[in-house]
Amino acid sequence: MTDARLADLPTPCLLLDEAKMKCNINRLAKRADSFGVLLRPHLKTTKSVEAARYVLKDGNGPATVSTLAEAEAFAAVGINDIVYGVGIGLNKLDRVLDLHRAGCRLVVLLDSLVQAQAVAAASKAAEIAIPAMIEIDSDGHRSGLAPSDPELIKIGRTLHEDGAELHGVLCHAGDSYFAVGREAQSIYAEVERLAVVNSADALRAAGLPCPVVSVGSTPTAHAAKNLTGVTEMRAGVYVFFDLVMAGIEVCDVNDIALSVLTTVIGHQVKQGWALIDAGWMAMSRDRGTANQTVDQGYGLVCDEAGQLLVDLVVIQANQEHGIIAVRPGSGRSMPDLVLGTRLRILPNHACATAAQHQRYHVLPEHSDAPLMIWDRFAGW
Amino acid sequence: MTDARLADLPTPCLLLDEAKMKCNINRLAKRADSFGVLLRPHLKTTKSVEAARYVLKDGNGPATVSTLAEAEAFAAVGINDIVYGVGIGLNKLDRVLDLHRAGCRLVVLLDSLVQAQAVAAASKAAEIAIPAMIEIDSDGHRSGLAPSDPELIKIGRTLHEDGAELHGVLCHAGDSYFAVGREAQSIYAEVERLAVVNSADALRAAGLPCPVVSVGSTPTAHAAKNLTGVTEMRAGVYVFFDLVMAGIEVCDVNDIALSVLTTVIGHQVKQGWALIDAGWMAMSRDRGTANQTVDQGYGLVCDEAGQLLVDLVVIQANQEHGIIAVRPGSGRSMPDLVLGTRLRILPNHACATAAQHQRYHVLPEHSDAPLMIWDRFAGW
Repeated sequence: MTDARLADLPTPCLLLDEAKMKCNINRLAKRADSFGVLLRPHLKTTKSVEAARYVLKDGNGPATVSTLAEAEAFAAVGINDIVYGVGIGLNKLDRVLDLHRAGCRLVVLLDSLVQAQAVAAASKAAEIAIPAMIEIDSDGHRSGLAPSDPELIKIGRTLHEDGAELHGVLCHAGDSYFAVGREAQSIYAEVERLAVVNSADALRAAGLPCPVVSVGSTPTAHAAKNLTGVTEMRAGVYVFFDLVMAGIEVCDVNDIALSVLTTVIGHQVKQGWALIDAGWMAMSRDRGTANQTVDQGYGLVCDEAGQLLVDLVVIQANQEHGIIAVRPGSGRSMPDLVLGTRLRILPNHACATAAQHQRYHVLPEHSDAPLMIWDRFAGW
Repeated sequence: MTDARLADLPTPCLLLDEAKMKCNINRLAKRADSFGVLLRPHLKTTKSVEAARYVLKDGNGPATVSTLAEAEAFAAVGINDIVYGVGIGLNKLDRVLDLHRAGCRLVVLLDSLVQAQAVAAASKAAEIAIPAMIEIDSDGHRSGLAPSDPELIKIGRTLHEDGAELHGVLCHAGDSYFAVGREAQSIYAEVERLAVVNSADALRAAGLPCPVVSVGSTPTAHAAKNLTGVTEMRAGVYVFFDLVMAGIEVCDVNDIALSVLTTVIGHQVKQGWALIDAGWMAMSRDRGTANQTVDQGYGLVCDEAGQLLVDLVVIQANQEHGIIAVRPGSGRSMPDLVLGTRLRILPNHACATAAQHQRYHVLPEHSDAPLMIWDRFAGW
């Protein structure tokens, strides 16, 4: 299959543009370097060992994951410095300990005394000090303590004194995904920074260690102006980018490295529709641009070579059907997309679209190199 | 793993209630029998050989699929009477022929002369008369010819005379998913019936065969009052049911056989939130109830035993976080869902939620029987 050419690929399938991906990876790596902070990429977007090798330029870490299944898959190939960036479930501590026994330093995340007590107790029982970070909330997005919450010190002390390891504090400015433009996003970045830096200061003032101060989201990582006091930043979707990120001006549409290859399978001429074999099963149900300034439907349409077909949008999707039409109000007419025409669809949300597929078909940076197949993994 | 108990399952994971599934299957099977029409279940919802064995009570068919990957997986276990219910791509005919050579009678679907010519040419070249159905559109939902379209006869004649097999006509009243209640849905069913029956009559009047007249969607299959002239009906999501189907009164919430098992991993007390480890990766991004009378968010909440917790809704989802809150305006207060509490979430759309998972954990009808694991397959 490594000798397959783009023209031979079955449809729908997932395409990845190696050159664009490398460019996106380098852009944020340089930015992190310029601030002197560690970049800890989030591997939940790619879920692929081969892609992780591009993202983790220094080899076996540092990395972030969103599931223990990711941690286990990456640990199995030697990646050994991982933050599990979702609040730890009390039913997951056995698997965390197994990862440590297998040589992977997995850091867990928590925001309550009950979790801290459970992590400390599990650490003590196993004689493995599980490293834990305290999650801080800067924007009311979902989980985490307010920086001023008095529980912070109690949690820190429990971890530090009862058998676990107080590794640091972590914040994710999830609401930055709704801020348009670098100036607006830089405010989220500063609020995110202050939340963790103030929390770290509070822990240290209480005599507790706080070696790691971690911030991150793709928008804030690209917009931050000041990272004083921060030791590392995390981001995930920047590796591929997508229409949601383009819609808030973190990237350009042409930076998007991920697309779905599809074939025209029908028409409704009176409606001005072309039907394609990429429905929501191939694109995901993510409609992340629905509330942005420009709604991109289920994706923007490119020709097979990746050139954008301006104002063509996947306006609707069923399980295995997509409907392409001219953007309402654009005044353009529908091009002649004859049956069998092959197109690429740019996704709203790369994490969601990639998760609908079992593998990447990687278009090589050097056009004489063979197309590569990279498996993805899934599950929890 | 077959000795696992519900209480031991890792979270998030996909649960299937065997007793409810059997009840749903029997309900529609009886209905089809009462009309004297064949039921051709759509296996795109389940994508599981074990589930197919429950649905296909007569063994190896008849069945409907939405991808060639489904056809290939089911053909590999002997299921040999399959309609591929998505307009055939010109790039997929080799795989169709391979399925025939392997003993699976796969029927393709088309709505254009170009497709008919390609199917006829491929049939002639391979000396295998590919059976093809002409897709008819009754409601402007997506693909298919209007019943009165003069292309119908040309397409039928091309199939019949140039090497393929004219198998019949097929219609899917996709817009019936937006009709509430049996009376409204029965109108869609009648329009769907008339579309195919009139098309079949037109083909026969032109001297062409039309042995199969196929209708179907889960709402119309449950609501049709008259199926005169129809030979078979198709439906898929009825096997599991979901909140979208409950929202349009095709089923009751208590009929839903599919759910996602999850664990409470955090709280935001001031917001009235409980956080769970089922985000959109476990539930899918499907928000099919968003435009229904009652928006069910990312799903309704049950306790671990499956009892509905009234007015608790998954109001928001990130990749691996769900947020549970009391339904706005309900006046209820948030119950005390302590860390580690296990819950079940009922999905908006069973096809989409199931597709996020690699296997079913099947809760047996008889409580002393072991929990079963059924693998799902994916891809195209």
